[in-house]
Amino acid sequence: MGSLEHPNSAPADPPSSVPEFNPLDPEEFRKQAHQMVDFIADYYKNIESYPVLSQVQPGYLRARLPETAPYRPESFDTILNDVRNDIIPGMTHWLSPNFFAFFPATVSSAAFVGEMLCTAFNSVGFNWLASPAATELEMVVMDWLANMLKLPKIFMFSGSGGGVIQNTTSESILVTLIAARDRSLNTIGSDKISKLVVYSSDQTHSTFKKACKIAGIFPCNIRTIPTTVDTHFALSPVLLRMTMEADVSSGYIPLYLCATVGTTSTTSVDPLQSLADVANDYGVWLHVDAAYGGNACICPEFRHFLVGIERADSLSLSPHKWLLSYLDCCCLWVKRPDLLVKALSTNPEYLKNKPSESDSVVDYKDWQVGTGRKFKAVRLWFVLRSYGITNLQSHIRSDVRMAKMFEGFVRSDPRFEIVVPRLFSLVCFRLTRCVCSELGDTETMNRKLLEWVNLTGQVYMTHTIVGGMYMLRFAVGTTLTEERHVIAAWELIRGGVDKILKGC
Amino acid sequence: MGSLEHPNSAPADPPSSVPEFNPLDPEEFRKQAHQMVDFIADYYKNIESYPVLSQVQPGYLRARLPETAPYRPESFDTILNDVRNDIIPGMTHWLSPNFFAFFPATVSSAAFVGEMLCTAFNSVGFNWLASPAATELEMVVMDWLANMLKLPKIFMFSGSGGGVIQNTTSESILVTLIAARDRSLNTIGSDKISKLVVYSSDQTHSTFKKACKIAGIFPCNIRTIPTTVDTHFALSPVLLRMTMEADVSSGYIPLYLCATVGTTSTTSVDPLQSLADVANDYGVWLHVDAAYGGNACICPEFRHFLVGIERADSLSLSPHKWLLSYLDCCCLWVKRPDLLVKALSTNPEYLKNKPSESDSVVDYKDWQVGTGRKFKAVRLWFVLRSYGITNLQSHIRSDVRMAKMFEGFVRSDPRFEIVVPRLFSLVCFRLTRCVCSELGDTETMNRKLLEWVNLTGQVYMTHTIVGGMYMLRFAVGTTLTEERHVIAAWELIRGGVDKILKGC
Repeated sequence: MGSLEHPNSAPADPPSSVPEFNPLDPEEFRKQAHQMVDFIADYYKNIESYPVLSQVQPGYLRARLPETAPYRPESFDTILNDVRNDIIPGMTHWLSPNFFAFFPATVSSAAFVGEMLCTAFNSVGFNWLASPAATELEMVVMDWLANMLKLPKIFMFSGSGGGVIQNTTSESILVTLIAARDRSLNTIGSDKISKLVVYSSDQTHSTFKKACKIAGIFPCNIRTIPTTVDTHFALSPVLLRMTMEADVSSGYIPLYLCATVGTTSTTSVDPLQSLADVANDYGVWLHVDAAYGGNACICPEFRHFLVGIERADSLSLSPHKWLLSYLDCCCLWVKRPDLLVKALSTNPEYLKNKPSESDSVVDYKDWQVGTGRKFKAVRLWFVLRSYGITNLQSHIRSDVRMAKMFEGFVRSDPRFEIVVPRLFSLVCFRLTRCVCSELGDTETMNRKLLEWVNLTGQVYMTHTIVGGMYMLRFAVGTTLTEERHVIAAWELIRGGVDKILKGC
Repeated sequence: MGSLEHPNSAPADPPSSVPEFNPLDPEEFRKQAHQMVDFIADYYKNIESYPVLSQVQPGYLRARLPETAPYRPESFDTILNDVRNDIIPGMTHWLSPNFFAFFPATVSSAAFVGEMLCTAFNSVGFNWLASPAATELEMVVMDWLANMLKLPKIFMFSGSGGGVIQNTTSESILVTLIAARDRSLNTIGSDKISKLVVYSSDQTHSTFKKACKIAGIFPCNIRTIPTTVDTHFALSPVLLRMTMEADVSSGYIPLYLCATVGTTSTTSVDPLQSLADVANDYGVWLHVDAAYGGNACICPEFRHFLVGIERADSLSLSPHKWLLSYLDCCCLWVKRPDLLVKALSTNPEYLKNKPSESDSVVDYKDWQVGTGRKFKAVRLWFVLRSYGITNLQSHIRSDVRMAKMFEGFVRSDPRFEIVVPRLFSLVCFRLTRCVCSELGDTETMNRKLLEWVNLTGQVYMTHTIVGGMYMLRFAVGTTLTEERHVIAAWELIRGGVDKILKGC
């Protein structure tokens, strides 16, 4: 490392030897940024040559880096060398075409240049006046995407609702939960917070429980409805109604239901229509978390998963998961923006201005946890325009086609079984009990297989356990994945099974 | 706009005419990104030619853009043209050297290329294994910065604490408040949440109240201690003790105190030592919000503002405000990471892995609101290494020198007065009552002056009201600001006064 020699204090020679400091000289900026573009383009070109899952051990980096920041500047080339030698070996390469773990985080050239522009402006759009274009483009883009999803007007600015870009699903759930909570507490009184009950299934993303804890919902009032393999791990409206009924009978107040379109473990879809029946009967805020699955609904053939959405109060989905937009990008639509604003608004003197006071504008600071915010919409705007609806639909369909292909491979090999039906581009599968029983229990053998595959560095997959069943997850969809990668992954997995079953 | 012709549905000719879709072709990526680098470098070169404060009217952009996303792709050049014609006129140019509003949001070439790399990797570092380098570099960089600030070891990973990069101060306050709240509720029981009381001054950032509301602190339990001009709007330890004492006598439980080093209105500094005495006496979590002022403490001559920090529980400061790092970047250090993790951890099956279970690694998802997170540290790492401590100190000192110069201008003109002492690079000033009284009241005349200045588009300043006094804020410090800009701004302001006082 170039900085080992630099102590955290002034060296003996006088600082006057340092040249005049101009950290945003446009020509220096141009030079370094061009160099970085080439570095990144080469990284993408060679990404297949890296192990997908990093093979380093905990603590590897601290041992390589100095204990303090350098006192004097270091050259761009020195730092870039360290990226090559110290950082890249410690990366798990999420953009590798051989990454089939979790859900993919998708990207594109258009989103990259859009993000460069967002960074470059560095505008802080807490209110309209501080960055009019940032606020207005976000409103436009959120309406565009709502249109692509065939959402009803009640979720759009062109209707009576509106959308906002949050960083993550966690924030989308948190802010809508706060809006629902405060609407309720404003009627019944703050001291009744102990009576508020929230609902989800045992397949709902863990961040829901975290949001509830942050919002001060009593831990004992977070109901987790069990699901079963018979209903493909979807939330049962019958069980939900029974649970709410019991709560009401015991003097509790049902507050918020989080339904999911495409759960994290197996992409199961909760039945929105029937859940809305229950939610509406009990006056509960219905939020739909469609972080992954919702993206597919820009294709008419998947849109049925959102049937009933017009009866929900809010919907979130993350284009960074499937619409090529880089992190972070979670779109949240609400029917009643006024409830968000009421719960989250602040109005300090130093931010007061005429447009905000005239109520003619949206101040996005009142739709989110923080105050400051970047020019978030420009990235998504670049994606939607550069590719058009047609290419984005093709991209979704291509991933689903590859997942179907993988599913076909699995079905063609009698040693494997598909554990839950494939709905989108995730395949949940495992070695059958029958095959495993010769050498060990099903879970152990499947764990061994996963570990073997991931240790090769050629493919990265992850696992889950649902309904007591351990299973492997093969999620297709990084931007660079082609059929040949899926075929090679399957060959690798088959080879692994041969080895495992031979007890190697 | 190039997309006006594209309806939100398939056109008559068949989609097969669309070429194969490859949204991350390395050579296409290279071409577009190089083009964008030049676009941005030129923007920075010409930034002085734009009105600092956007002159558009609410709704300007919606009127210019189509109602739906295009069905077919549009060219990069078309979109870039629309950025020029439709977006840039609607920007308030935060990076203009003539931006003196709010606090500056500072940037640099090094941070830009670091952010390009962060974007490019698109790694989702929710836990160590998902991106080892991302987690470990953040730990190293947070210790580096702690060292630069001469924080005690108890806030560092090399000691018993640790740091994390949050997006904003709001999140830093929220997560520490949750940690404090749950530590308390775990002892006294969830149903005692109605007894928990939090404290700040009337100068504390408005986001504190928002965080308290989100965390379910009862609105009536948020104490806002008044400050006065006599103590330069610093929080009084005497009043704080009286308030806490009264609360305890009434059966309430003091929970959390938010002190500030560099308040948003006037950069006043709360006396940490004496506040820590009170906080420690009542077992209250002491958080120090040093979002702006803390950055200056990398210079020995400003470090005294943090005296007493070793007795706080947590500290946050935002390098995006003064350490050239672009948005978003808020550094949070805590003495007891275990309390954050206890309050915010989730452990779903699909994220389980050996390193996390061995407790040998940090999983940053348990230090924040969300689950996913980008490779946040790489940007700050580029800044610290590219410039070194010496240049960052120079940058702080240069801004303070320019603010002092402006202060000198104000003092030399008897029509103006400095309202509160300048501590960092913000000058709070106004036309005196005496000068104004000929034409109107002080507030009206100063408002008129501000409006006149901002409408020129040549300079952007903002105002505040503290202790009933309306004042103008002149915050020096965008990366591109030089002495000549400060001098020109002062000339403009003087010219404005001449006009205003003549009743023009």
